[in-house]
Amino acid sequence: MRVVVLGCGRVGSHLAKLLIGQGHEVAVIDRDSAAFKRLGADFPGRVVLGTGIDEDVLRRAGIEKAEAFVAVTNGDNTNVMAAQVAREVFSVPRVICRIYDPLRAELYRSLGLDTMCPTVLGAERIAELLGG
Amino acid sequence: MRVVVLGCGRVGSHLAKLLIGQGHEVAVIDRDSAAFKRLGADFPGRVVLGTGIDEDVLRRAGIEKAEAFVAVTNGDNTNVMAAQVAREVFSVPRVICRIYDPLRAELYRSLGLDTMCPTVLGAERIAELLGG
Repeated sequence: MRVVVLGCGRVGSHLAKLLIGQGHEVAVIDRDSAAFKRLGADFPGRVVLGTGIDEDVLRRAGIEKAEAFVAVTNGDNTNVMAAQVAREVFSVPRVICRIYDPLRAELYRSLGLDTMCPTVLGAERIAELLGG
Repeated sequence: MRVVVLGCGRVGSHLAKLLIGQGHEVAVIDRDSAAFKRLGADFPGRVVLGTGIDEDVLRRAGIEKAEAFVAVTNGDNTNVMAAQVAREVFSVPRVICRIYDPLRAELYRSLGLDTMCPTVLGAERIAELLGG
């Protein structure tokens, strides 16, 4: 699968390496070149410098042929906007968007966006561990 | 169950409300009083202002009678230190510690600390969603 990951922070870089390990083709976008260090020197994927709400940047990352797009910058708004561009403009089949705010995550989920809310995920995981 | 939650950020406040909803007795510690707003005006648990590596603050939150302690401040170091104090000084039966850095989360887990790593959790959840 060809996957474009927007945001090379902790989760973005970890995910990119995870996907590479699973045999996927991965391109990572970040507006800060220093962020790519998290991928390690031997990262076999593509890295693209720029902001993910810029269509040219997305094209350079290969979004036109991507089967999946994942938005995991630190900004909920950026993630939502980029996810919508990926879905509406480039018709990427699978689009996943990280949204920290639980209420907004729920709202966008109800609007059909595939969202991942680390706040809910983390709290539920801890509650599970406490129950175990 | 009596639970002390250190850190009233997004995950701490969400968890505190989740646990209250499950019928647990919850005390929340944060060093910033503005953080308690996240709990809402009707939060029935206890709130304690102070730093969670201070034993007096932990005592005020009822750690001596707590069955569980959860460290979810934004600092990995603070969480590890507070978790160790809860376990070693106050013998809290269940101690869970959030560590963003995957390598340190693994290290402390191997040392017997119950850790939750949002980086790994988030990346794995997205990889799961992509596979689904």
